[in-house]
Amino acid sequence: MKILILQGPNLNMLGKRKAEHYGVETLDEIHKRMVERANSLGAELILYQSNHEGNLVEKIHSERESVEGIIVNPAGLTGFGYSLRDAIEDSGLPAIEVHLSNIYAREGFRENSCISTVVVGQIVGFKWRGYIAALEVLVGMLEEET
Amino acid sequence: MKILILQGPNLNMLGKRKAEHYGVETLDEIHKRMVERANSLGAELILYQSNHEGNLVEKIHSERESVEGIIVNPAGLTGFGYSLRDAIEDSGLPAIEVHLSNIYAREGFRENSCISTVVVGQIVGFKWRGYIAALEVLVGMLEEET
Amino acid sequence: MKILILQGPNLNMLGKRKAEHYGVETLDEIHKRMVERANSLGAELILYQSNHEGNLVEKIHSERESVEGIIVNPAGLTGFGYSLRDAIEDSGLPAIEVHLSNIYAREGFRENSCISTVVVGQIVGFKWRGYIAALEVLVGMLEEET
Amino acid sequence: MKILILQGPNLNMLGKRKAEHYGVETLDEIHKRMVERANSLGAELILYQSNHEGNLVEKIHSERESVEGIIVNPAGLTGFGYSLRDAIEDSGLPAIEVHLSNIYAREGFRENSCISTVVVGQIVGFKWRGYIAALEVLVGMLEEET
Amino acid sequence: MKILILQGPNLNMLGKRKAEHYGVETLDEIHKRMVERANSLGAELILYQSNHEGNLVEKIHSERESVEGIIVNPAGLTGFGYSLRDAIEDSGLPAIEVHLSNIYAREGFRENSCISTVVVGQIVGFKWRGYIAALEVLVGMLEEET
Amino acid sequence: MKILILQGPNLNMLGKRKAEHYGVETLDEIHKRMVERANSLGAELILYQSNHEGNLVEKIHSERESVEGIIVNPAGLTGFGYSLRDAIEDSGLPAIEVHLSNIYAREGFRENSCISTVVVGQIVGFKWRGYIAALEVLVGMLEEET
Amino acid sequence: MKILILQGPNLNMLGKRKAEHYGVETLDEIHKRMVERANSLGAELILYQSNHEGNLVEKIHSERESVEGIIVNPAGLTGFGYSLRDAIEDSGLPAIEVHLSNIYAREGFRENSCISTVVVGQIVGFKWRGYIAALEVLVGMLEEET
Amino acid sequence: MKILILQGPNLNMLGKRKAEHYGVETLDEIHKRMVERANSLGAELILYQSNHEGNLVEKIHSERESVEGIIVNPAGLTGFGYSLRDAIEDSGLPAIEVHLSNIYAREGFRENSCISTVVVGQIVGFKWRGYIAALEVLVGMLEEET
Amino acid sequence: MKILILQGPNLNMLGKRKAEHYGVETLDEIHKRMVERANSLGAELILYQSNHEGNLVEKIHSERESVEGIIVNPAGLTGFGYSLRDAIEDSGLPAIEVHLSNIYAREGFRENSCISTVVVGQIVGFKWRGYIAALEVLVGMLEEET
Amino acid sequence: MKILILQGPNLNMLGKRKAEHYGVETLDEIHKRMVERANSLGAELILYQSNHEGNLVEKIHSERESVEGIIVNPAGLTGFGYSLRDAIEDSGLPAIEVHLSNIYAREGFRENSCISTVVVGQIVGFKWRGYIAALEVLVGMLEEET
Amino acid sequence: MKILILQGPNLNMLGKRKAEHYGVETLDEIHKRMVERANSLGAELILYQSNHEGNLVEKIHSERESVEGIIVNPAGLTGFGYSLRDAIEDSGLPAIEVHLSNIYAREGFRENSCISTVVVGQIVGFKWRGYIAALEVLVGMLEEET
Amino acid sequence: MKILILQGPNLNMLGKRKAEHYGVETLDEIHKRMVERANSLGAELILYQSNHEGNLVEKIHSERESVEGIIVNPAGLTGFGYSLRDAIEDSGLPAIEVHLSNIYAREGFRENSCISTVVVGQIVGFKWRGYIAALEVLVGMLEEET
Repeated sequence: MKILILQGPNLNMLGKRKAEHYGVETLDEIHKRMVERANSLGAELILYQSNHEGNLVEKIHSERESVEGIIVNPAGLTGFGYSLRDAIEDSGLPAIEVHLSNIYAREGFRENSCISTVVVGQIVGFKWRGYIAALEVLVGMLEEET
Repeated sequence: MKILILQGPNLNMLGKRKAEHYGVETLDEIHKRMVERANSLGAELILYQSNHEGNLVEKIHSERESVEGIIVNPAGLTGFGYSLRDAIEDSGLPAIEVHLSNIYAREGFRENSCISTVVVGQIVGFKWRGYIAALEVLVGMLEEET
Repeated sequence: MKILILQGPNLNMLGKRKAEHYGVETLDEIHKRMVERANSLGAELILYQSNHEGNLVEKIHSERESVEGIIVNPAGLTGFGYSLRDAIEDSGLPAIEVHLSNIYAREGFRENSCISTVVVGQIVGFKWRGYIAALEVLVGMLEEET
Repeated sequence: MKILILQGPNLNMLGKRKAEHYGVETLDEIHKRMVERANSLGAELILYQSNHEGNLVEKIHSERESVEGIIVNPAGLTGFGYSLRDAIEDSGLPAIEVHLSNIYAREGFRENSCISTVVVGQIVGFKWRGYIAALEVLVGMLEEET
Repeated sequence: MKILILQGPNLNMLGKRKAEHYGVETLDEIHKRMVERANSLGAELILYQSNHEGNLVEKIHSERESVEGIIVNPAGLTGFGYSLRDAIEDSGLPAIEVHLSNIYAREGFRENSCISTVVVGQIVGFKWRGYIAALEVLVGMLEEET
Repeated sequence: MKILILQGPNLNMLGKRKAEHYGVETLDEIHKRMVERANSLGAELILYQSNHEGNLVEKIHSERESVEGIIVNPAGLTGFGYSLRDAIEDSGLPAIEVHLSNIYAREGFRENSCISTVVVGQIVGFKWRGYIAALEVLVGMLEEET
Repeated sequence: MKILILQGPNLNMLGKRKAEHYGVETLDEIHKRMVERANSLGAELILYQSNHEGNLVEKIHSERESVEGIIVNPAGLTGFGYSLRDAIEDSGLPAIEVHLSNIYAREGFRENSCISTVVVGQIVGFKWRGYIAALEVLVGMLEEET
Repeated sequence: MKILILQGPNLNMLGKRKAEHYGVETLDEIHKRMVERANSLGAELILYQSNHEGNLVEKIHSERESVEGIIVNPAGLTGFGYSLRDAIEDSGLPAIEVHLSNIYAREGFRENSCISTVVVGQIVGFKWRGYIAALEVLVGMLEEET
Repeated sequence: MKILILQGPNLNMLGKRKAEHYGVETLDEIHKRMVERANSLGAELILYQSNHEGNLVEKIHSERESVEGIIVNPAGLTGFGYSLRDAIEDSGLPAIEVHLSNIYAREGFRENSCISTVVVGQIVGFKWRGYIAALEVLVGMLEEET
Repeated sequence: MKILILQGPNLNMLGKRKAEHYGVETLDEIHKRMVERANSLGAELILYQSNHEGNLVEKIHSERESVEGIIVNPAGLTGFGYSLRDAIEDSGLPAIEVHLSNIYAREGFRENSCISTVVVGQIVGFKWRGYIAALEVLVGMLEEET
Repeated sequence: MKILILQGPNLNMLGKRKAEHYGVETLDEIHKRMVERANSLGAELILYQSNHEGNLVEKIHSERESVEGIIVNPAGLTGFGYSLRDAIEDSGLPAIEVHLSNIYAREGFRENSCISTVVVGQIVGFKWRGYIAALEVLVGMLEEET
Repeated sequence: MKILILQGPNLNMLGKRKAEHYGVETLDEIHKRMVERANSLGAELILYQSNHEGNLVEKIHSERESVEGIIVNPAGLTGFGYSLRDAIEDSGLPAIEVHLSNIYAREGFRENSCISTVVVGQIVGFKWRGYIAALEVLVGMLEEET
């Protein structure tokens, strides 16, 4: 079982961003924890970060046949990344939207996700733990369907 | 470690509500799975459902000294249950908001949670699995603080 | 054929409320007229008033198996009684929403009914006559289905 | 006792419109049932349908001295038929607004009735039965006043 | 110098409408006063009332070559009579919008005139006197241009 | 194959309206070009213009059995012609909405079409060429279905 | 019969402001024409211009016992001059609001008058002629009441 | 002279809520100060707190004949406690709304009081002193009426 | 202890304004009652009324060093008097906003106070008694701080 | 005559997207039909698809001297692609906006095009036929200008 | 070359206002720095501060013939100072709007400037440095025009 | 002292864009003037233009350690470039936002900058002079901090 992990703009800088919102871990450290948990769950991860919406869109295009689900943190594309949104919807894959910080308790512009209507659900506000929870849920759902 | 599980109005009817939104499990079945996972995590659950906002408020009042965290599904009180909201905020306890269905992909009035600003985060759209994920996250956070 | 009549908050005070909006009849007098008409139509009524949303919700829970339809005046719960709304929708029963006064010609906040999307229709503005009209329509519809 | 029945644009096509919203009866069949009930209630009906707002306005002008009440289904004029609205208000006659379908559970533009503030009340969502209920209520009110 | 006087829906009923808003004069009486003043100003009036927007539009089409200005009371078409609005704009004629009552101090829906952007100006709230003032202003402007 | 061409209010004045928005052609000249193209495509046109919404509605009622599609320029009825909208929807015919000028680059009130949700699509901003394009597309679609 | 003429901020600069909106006349020239007309109507004018809202308010306080009516051009105070508005309302005098330009066909912020609900009516868009028309209407109304 | 003191949801927790908003006094301490002042003013207080809107509603129902006025802190019911609002309005008693904190300088949802239109006035932001001020004002008004 | 009392535009006319909103007392009579109460509380008042926002601003500038608190009735400046608002905020003094009438139960434009976020609290709707209550509260708070 | 064809994000996946909205043709198939029609019209096409807004912008920069017009389907950039919008406007070239599906009859966020004010017009809802119609209209317009 | 410097309400208190927004300099100190820079640029400054909008308006009236440009900090008049706005527009002079603090990163009501549409541009957020930058830009523009 | 100059989409086309908004200078010419001024101020500039938001984001990532401040013209990314916004905020560097044209006096969509809350301030409307002023202000601030 393969899962695509999509990390949006600026997430390559994790560890240097505001710790109270995003935690102190770097993206590599988070990915390492995700891979460990994925191993114990019997899943394989395709890890991908980009600061270009077009690249994220094309990663979905190229991987949509080979993976069974998506975990996406749209970051700065949350509000208006409609191309990303359409790519997820077109893929027909179950997807989970993750945010490190509680976007509903910060600035108003972060509350409105154009992605939220094409995903199975959201996990919001738990820093790196949110990715682990998303992995568990997604693998659980995919195994159930089989 | 004790955790208070609050289930809002109509959730006692789970299993008889629309399966595509809420799943086919009854509340008892969900609670049973939660207790099992809590046991393996070394946590004790106080399970409580009510159709009265006042009762939920008073449950928080009576348990806030004895528990270390809250998992709440406000159900019909999500949008305007300000008394419940105030009780959670007053308690000073870390809380997680769970919704069985993806409230952001349904009717507009479900999108707006008055609870969301007083919780650590939300887990939305994964039916019963959302409660398990919430348990894991909450216990993880509480252990870390110790 | 049994029908559940639900009367929301403050309706127990009818006869003491503003006559130009609600008429001069007490709730007992209105219920008496409803029972008479129900008798002539061959229907039995379960009459229930409460000032607690939770009680109204639970009345639907306990009666939903035994009745064939609901007539509800949500009164003060019209705008934001989402727990009541969910209970009606969950019941799967045909329901009619009645308001004694013309809520569309009064204060703005009365215009917006969160109940209106889960009922067959509304009867608004005819004081006690609205309940009689609702009875006739509901019995007519139920008989037709049989 | 004479009552003016006003049927707005496209209602002459009833029976050929979407049955789930409007029912299968033609306007003639509905009018026939209304006349029967009116007879039994001792009332006389003036039946009038037009696709021209101006004609509906002028029908009120010419009949307002001879009738005691109005039942109106404004159809496509519901939202913005202010000339019809003014004609009803000017007439000083008690009026009832009828809609065949539940306008509050369909497209957003149907929810807003500019007529609703100048009528005694609304009956919404019961297909042809709504007209019969309106007749009963209106005759009842008019008899009471005498 | 010929001037077209356009009177919108329901204005044929003046004298029978609410006196505090519209005054006690009938449309004929108002027209008589207008003709008298027009005579003393050396102007000829084409008087036209209709309850049909289409008729008002076509009257402008047929008279636009023969008149030098328009005085229009759009009445019930004030808010959404865009066909009337386009006909006035297309005519290229100077026009004055008159309202008998102060539309800015009544119901909200009367405040918004779709006509106001294609006229030279408005005279609002002075009952029949508003037409006389409009005549004076329009004749004055037309004479000045010559 | 017969097609109904509906032209809304004021379009009989084309050639005398603002050329930068509508072009210099009269309606007759445009219709002549449409008939020529229709001939070459093997289609017959029923040409109809009216300044009365009621007439346009009734034209659809009388022709809906005999034609296979509609091309409509609602003109001044674009924003609030709900009776016209309902007639088109009821007809069940494929329809194309044409506007001579780019309504999205002019006054705000022209942007909002109540017709747009009941047509196959829109062609906007190309003056007389828009009708020719609509003819080609509509005939192409109708032939494909056969 | 004495009438108070109130001219708001920047109107002392008339003649140097944009002619297409305000005309080429200076305030003195307009006042001279008003005095001439007032003389022929048998009225006396108190002419007052100020760029200070407080002065306009106090002018009403000091003259409200001695005059029978007010003609006011609030200019830059039109939208938010609530102190001026309250002073007019408190005075109990009939007032007419005049604007030189058609405020409904210019920038959006000019459309909304906080004065309009405390005056008898508005005369808008006719440059200096608007004041003359206001004088005629006001004197006519005052004479009628006597 | 008897006065009903109504304390809404969560106010039984005073002393444990955020001190900067609500002060450090418990509800009992506040009530004690109120009773002292009431004694010196010659008034008797009926003190009542509930977390159930229904209970507050019924307290008004049962006491409305025996008291002469109401002081109410709606707390969590401020925004949407329409049942409470209706009960106050129905009682016909003069009422004063008190809030411990300045609701206009906190979160937006606290600004909107559905109670404010059925009370004589509001006292907002002075912690426990607000109740004392309310007592003085209410007793003063009631004595004056006698 | 000195307190600055600021009275906004038109309040010098109290006693001649609508009694149902403002009471029958003149400003002098209200000030006399305030001085009496202030004496008994051991406070000195600086009384100031102006119809000019600039004067009110400058009064705060000149007195802010010498007084310990402000009681302000902004009157017509309530909604948009941002200069007054900034002056109060800059002064760093505790302030209380008083309105004679219940601004929340009158016209919509009165509801929105730009002052409310820079004061300790509001006292609204008690006519002259509101000032006395404000004095008591303000002196009480100031004494407590000492 | 050369024409630039711009295809926005995700359109490279046509044929695999929802057929009811976009049709069953791949982008290559659509382009092939466009080239055929262009040949018969004597025009040459520059075909370009990208999932990167920046690439689309730069394609306009590099081709704006060599082409005479643009046909653009902005896809996911329709609502907020302001850089694309500015590039089209700066180019000074006549452009036509094409959408495969009827964006006015789908989700709300698709309705608002930031491109629509810088194009000659829109063709919306006709799947691949829309491109052919756009070609005909654009070539016709360009030939006329010569 | 003479330039008019206009300073709005409360700016005479600079140095005593919140330093994080406005800096620690007094208005005199800022003006001194401006005069120095003006000298080196060969410009003469007319410095003027007022807390009265009327005074600012009249200063523009009296100086508009003698100066070549305006630098204005509208302060508390930013949002609704329409009289000031009209005076600037009428003057026909190039103007620059300066704000000491970044009004776009503070309270919402500060964001909206009614002045911004009649100035050449804004300089916002640089405390006293903003005035120096404005001087340089304005002198540069004026010299270029000569 | 090094400063990063970021130029957003389409700015490479300066000199070919509308001169009344952007001036006649090319980007190279503007950059040359900036370098000259920077030299005289003792600062070094890193000049970067891109039409890709992702590139601008990554330029900040790669330069944030080596520069002391940013001057950014977001151009087409002004309204919705949230990834750019987050990159600026994360960098912790003082930034100045420059716009060549007065965005507050053009189309509505240009008014709203998502960047404005993470910069020190804005300089808007002065064409190339705005960059020079930004340089002076930024260098001045940076020197002061040292």
